[in-house]
Amino acid sequence: MVSNLFITFEGPDGAGKTSALKDIVQRLEQHNIDFLATREPGGIRIAENIREVILNPAYQEMDAHTEALLYAAARSQHFYEKIVPALQSGKHVLCDRFIDSSLAYQGFARALGVDEVLSINEFAIGKRMPDLTIFFDLQPQIGLARIQANRSDEINRLDAESLVFHEKVYAGYEEVLRRYPERIRIVDASKSLDEVTEDVWKILKEVIV
Amino acid sequence: MVSNLFITFEGPDGAGKTSALKDIVQRLEQHNIDFLATREPGGIRIAENIREVILNPAYQEMDAHTEALLYAAARSQHFYEKIVPALQSGKHVLCDRFIDSSLAYQGFARALGVDEVLSINEFAIGKRMPDLTIFFDLQPQIGLARIQANRSDEINRLDAESLVFHEKVYAGYEEVLRRYPERIRIVDASKSLDEVTEDVWKILKEVIV
Repeated sequence: MVSNLFITFEGPDGAGKTSALKDIVQRLEQHNIDFLATREPGGIRIAENIREVILNPAYQEMDAHTEALLYAAARSQHFYEKIVPALQSGKHVLCDRFIDSSLAYQGFARALGVDEVLSINEFAIGKRMPDLTIFFDLQPQIGLARIQANRSDEINRLDAESLVFHEKVYAGYEEVLRRYPERIRIVDASKSLDEVTEDVWKILKEVIV
Repeated sequence: MVSNLFITFEGPDGAGKTSALKDIVQRLEQHNIDFLATREPGGIRIAENIREVILNPAYQEMDAHTEALLYAAARSQHFYEKIVPALQSGKHVLCDRFIDSSLAYQGFARALGVDEVLSINEFAIGKRMPDLTIFFDLQPQIGLARIQANRSDEINRLDAESLVFHEKVYAGYEEVLRRYPERIRIVDASKSLDEVTEDVWKILKEVIV
């Protein structure tokens, strides 16, 4: 008998996390698992409002520290308003991106320091780290090519970043993997969606089904 | 020959910081001192936008961690966009409220932890603490009475707090004073505005005039 778990999905843009999570949600429903699937800002109005500030394409002058603090603020509200109550009610929680995204993107890729970004994010979530993280491993040039093929209608300030930035994000995730080997499981995200979903499902079956 | 200084004005609500700072600004101008007087969000559009989120009276569900991170985010943008360039250009900077307000209000009064709130604010300002802080010392019941007499048209979520909260803020400032005795100078803010301004001016004359 396992207690309910807090599980996060991580990986570079274009790695297919969101698509795989949709398929996983269907399987969990078929198995009558009590869960919540979410992603920041997750319909939480304060977090949504903060995200509007972060992603406002006019705000070119936004300092990287400000951006990191705003992500942490949106995370905090989503965490306390949505994730914590679900965990307290006995649900498993699956979250599409969480603290590791900030460590890779802000801490490493934007060079704010992984320890420093970890510190503000630990404040945001009361040091409640995920129990399990599934990392969608995909080379950055493949991820970027997928984004450019699929999301041409969703250009915002972040999508305008270059391959150089995506490579830094990937290196950031490698650093995160080195720090948390016991928490993070890796799936090969260069495979087809069906194969990736199957790999994720195998990991989840070990712990929650 | 002193270099230019970063000076902050701190104290509980109603202590008269803003009024005294106005008079001090006139004196600095008369002495042809090169300075910038500011307060967060200070006309910095990103910081103003963040402040709108913090002070939205509809957001009763805002978590205290979220609020503290938003204050730190607004501080960061105001700091890098307005204070740092002024200091780099050789100006003295006088700022009405800064990091100590967060330590007293969020860290102590809202019980988030002074060390924890210090940590996210050090991130926000690259650990650049003020060179000098002038603390306007006023008993919380007097401050609250002044607020209620003068600001009945400015009710927002924060002004709705009780005397109990104002007493906690004062205790928070006492903790800040214990931590930074070498940085902080105290003025008796129960005196008349003219007397308080004179006391502040005496301190400033020692260091920048």
